[in-house]
Amino acid sequence: MITKEQIAEKYKEIQEEITQALEKLDGKAVFQEELWERDGGGGGRTRIIQHGDILEKGGVNFSAVHGELPAPIKKAFGVEEDKFFATGVSIVIHPNNPWIPIIHMNIRYFELNENIRWFGGGIDLTPHYVIEEDAKDFHQALKAVCDQYSAQFYEEFKTWADNYFYIKHRNETRGIGGIFYDKLTPEKAGVSMEEIFDFSCALGRLFPKIYTEIVNRNRDKSFTKEEKDWQLLRRGRYVEFNLVYDSGTKFGLETNGRIESILMSLPEQANWFYNFQTQPGSKEEKTLGLLKKGINWVG
Amino acid sequence: MITKEQIAEKYKEIQEEITQALEKLDGKAVFQEELWERDGGGGGRTRIIQHGDILEKGGVNFSAVHGELPAPIKKAFGVEEDKFFATGVSIVIHPNNPWIPIIHMNIRYFELNENIRWFGGGIDLTPHYVIEEDAKDFHQALKAVCDQYSAQFYEEFKTWADNYFYIKHRNETRGIGGIFYDKLTPEKAGVSMEEIFDFSCALGRLFPKIYTEIVNRNRDKSFTKEEKDWQLLRRGRYVEFNLVYDSGTKFGLETNGRIESILMSLPEQANWFYNFQTQPGSKEEKTLGLLKKGINWVG
Repeated sequence: MITKEQIAEKYKEIQEEITQALEKLDGKAVFQEELWERDGGGGGRTRIIQHGDILEKGGVNFSAVHGELPAPIKKAFGVEEDKFFATGVSIVIHPNNPWIPIIHMNIRYFELNENIRWFGGGIDLTPHYVIEEDAKDFHQALKAVCDQYSAQFYEEFKTWADNYFYIKHRNETRGIGGIFYDKLTPEKAGVSMEEIFDFSCALGRLFPKIYTEIVNRNRDKSFTKEEKDWQLLRRGRYVEFNLVYDSGTKFGLETNGRIESILMSLPEQANWFYNFQTQPGSKEEKTLGLLKKGINWVG
Repeated sequence: MITKEQIAEKYKEIQEEITQALEKLDGKAVFQEELWERDGGGGGRTRIIQHGDILEKGGVNFSAVHGELPAPIKKAFGVEEDKFFATGVSIVIHPNNPWIPIIHMNIRYFELNENIRWFGGGIDLTPHYVIEEDAKDFHQALKAVCDQYSAQFYEEFKTWADNYFYIKHRNETRGIGGIFYDKLTPEKAGVSMEEIFDFSCALGRLFPKIYTEIVNRNRDKSFTKEEKDWQLLRRGRYVEFNLVYDSGTKFGLETNGRIESILMSLPEQANWFYNFQTQPGSKEEKTLGLLKKGINWVG
């Protein structure tokens, strides 16, 4: 049986592969690294890229932490066990150019008292302007990976992402979704623990490929001040989602994680323009129309 | 006995007085007004000032809403009653100049099924750079108003503010505090309902006086890019507090309030500079040293 140490080791390799690929993609900036330890157990390797040619601010975090599960989380999980181990890779990239989407990926493994074991993760894309071809290709690529492991994964995890990456108070999805899964066990997935793990690694390896493709399609597009302002407003929505709803952020804040690593997901700059209204027929309005649950991008 | 209609009417007058005083203070910008209705009952009058000489973005909201109390809030309040009425004035001001503090004030009245009635509110100051004289005068002014109603109010409500306006994950207070109180009844306060109401009105009337004084002391100070960046970083902390901890924001989001009125508390621009470290002996470090609970500003 695969051990938590083996999972952590492989996830660390995936972090390395991704940071190399993103440096190559950017061509200018390089990652800076912080190794950190967590009071209470474990630590991580945070890598941040900033002020690049393409990437304004991005983080690729690896961590493997363990300790006592705080009471509110125990309650939320509905478990009695209280020793946790968690390892994963977490990524958020905020590009300079509003025509390039924000992207997020997370793959993680969680253990409680060594008898509860599950995987979680997902990839989702947050375009400032939705480009339908990119959205379709992104979903198609996710579906292709899912289909290698289970005929159910894509549909189930796509719906899960629609519901998870949802800004309830705005009645908007964060972006065009992707896939999301949590507490995945062989029982629920219908495949073995090893296959779930392989699936998570395949997502980790898909990430740099799909993002490189989408960045290269859009990197040379010019943009206006109005388009930049719309990006800054959409980044504000991203901040709202992450601070109000994101359970990974909540988990990190409540388990005394390293704050700068958790909040690396926030953009360098975000704006809130009071009561901004999109113009009828504008591309901003068109984008808002596509920030909805239940759109079939692979039909 | 004072009625909810009378309370709402007086709070609306206070909103009017405050917006007049702030326009006078700014000298350039004027408030724009939105009247809105809430699905489920009631509505409000939102007034926003933007791009002024002093005030970059500020909101002075009046609302009087009623309806069914959502189940999670019922649970949090520990009550069985489920018809609520809430009225109040809520203010947040983000100035242009980093030497001028952000300020927040809220006075509110809450009724459940007409048999539970309480007041809540507070004023707190969030300097980007703590100026000790301003902080002392601010607290002294709050104490003077508190002391007119009860010898216990200032000490009790100052401690409450220290604990409430606290960014747990940063181990920082939001600013230099002020006063905060909630669910205040004659039983708890030791004064009559009318006196609690008068106290809230006195706070509403103190607000423009004390802010005008502090603005005028600092409005002509010049600032550098580094000082502006520090302001943008501190605004990021303000966003973190409001979206992660602020119970007024949570209440608004959960009761289907008008989003743009609730989130007017967010600054036009906020930044997250990864892993920013203050320099030893710098004024930023000195400010961080004063963002702590338990500082006695009136001793």
